[in-house]
Amino acid sequence: MAQQEVTNGSSEKKTGGGNDIMEVIEVKFTALKPQLVVEAPKANEAILFYKAAFGAEELGRTLHPKRKADQELPLILSAQLSLAGSTILVSDLADPSETPAKTEGTGLVFYLETDDVASAINKAVGAGAVVVSEIAEGEGAGCGLSRVGKVKDPYGVVWAIGSPAAKAAVVEA
Amino acid sequence: MAQQEVTNGSSEKKTGGGNDIMEVIEVKFTALKPQLVVEAPKANEAILFYKAAFGAEELGRTLHPKRKADQELPLILSAQLSLAGSTILVSDLADPSETPAKTEGTGLVFYLETDDVASAINKAVGAGAVVVSEIAEGEGAGCGLSRVGKVKDPYGVVWAIGSPAAKAAVVEA
Repeated sequence: MAQQEVTNGSSEKKTGGGNDIMEVIEVKFTALKPQLVVEAPKANEAILFYKAAFGAEELGRTLHPKRKADQELPLILSAQLSLAGSTILVSDLADPSETPAKTEGTGLVFYLETDDVASAINKAVGAGAVVVSEIAEGEGAGCGLSRVGKVKDPYGVVWAIGSPAAKAAVVEA
Repeated sequence: MAQQEVTNGSSEKKTGGGNDIMEVIEVKFTALKPQLVVEAPKANEAILFYKAAFGAEELGRTLHPKRKADQELPLILSAQLSLAGSTILVSDLADPSETPAKTEGTGLVFYLETDDVASAINKAVGAGAVVVSEIAEGEGAGCGLSRVGKVKDPYGVVWAIGSPAAKAAVVEA
């Protein structure tokens, strides 16, 4: 967790319109949670998949306040899943017009670290994921992982499953 | 971190070809790290942005082993940034054919929790993000957050910046 720095009396702190020197604003963030928004009402199915594929544990869920009468499943506003020490959110996209903003055009992949890459990939495939990159070894496997394979889940998310790299390969910034 | 369950002697553990009862494979994951892949050589610029916008701290970086002579900047295979207690990876996409697999078609947003939503959004905008949803209050803000606004960064990633929801709004699973 980042320390909030005290900047009282700092000469870097500037205000005023028309001043293009950026104001130094100290903000403390307490959590980062990737949120996956799936076509309604598939969030419940997606949660079951993440439990089966990756052993995710559900911490809780908030249901959508407006439930349509003709829907069997209540829509999920947000479910919190614990996975590898992180929290991810899974939500139903109830009305496409409600969330015009989504990440696009960028390559975004979730790296999951494990010492047992082959078993992890087998388990994910058993739960419904498909292999998109076979397990590769060495530097070419990329991204600081010494051994990595990739699967795509039924919701379009790519998971790179790899073992942590040797410490020697990391250059300190 | 998830406990690895012991399944010795468990009757659920089945093996053998042609048996469609899924084998119970216990896999322990040690970390989940979202990886953002940007068009080369913009990873360095993206890292500077995440430091300025969100106070991310760089933990280290691994450079691409094959550096082209006509490039000023060495390409980044993977840089590790610490942000709000999580680790994210930022990488240059050196050769589009190297990473055919990326997340697509799905709504993916990063939720950043803070008690000071307005300042956080101002700081991100000052660093180059654009507002895509003004700050909204109450249940309609979505996803278990009581107050949330959204910005899109220069690399196409949407960040929902919000304050944590009241505990009462969360239904235990």
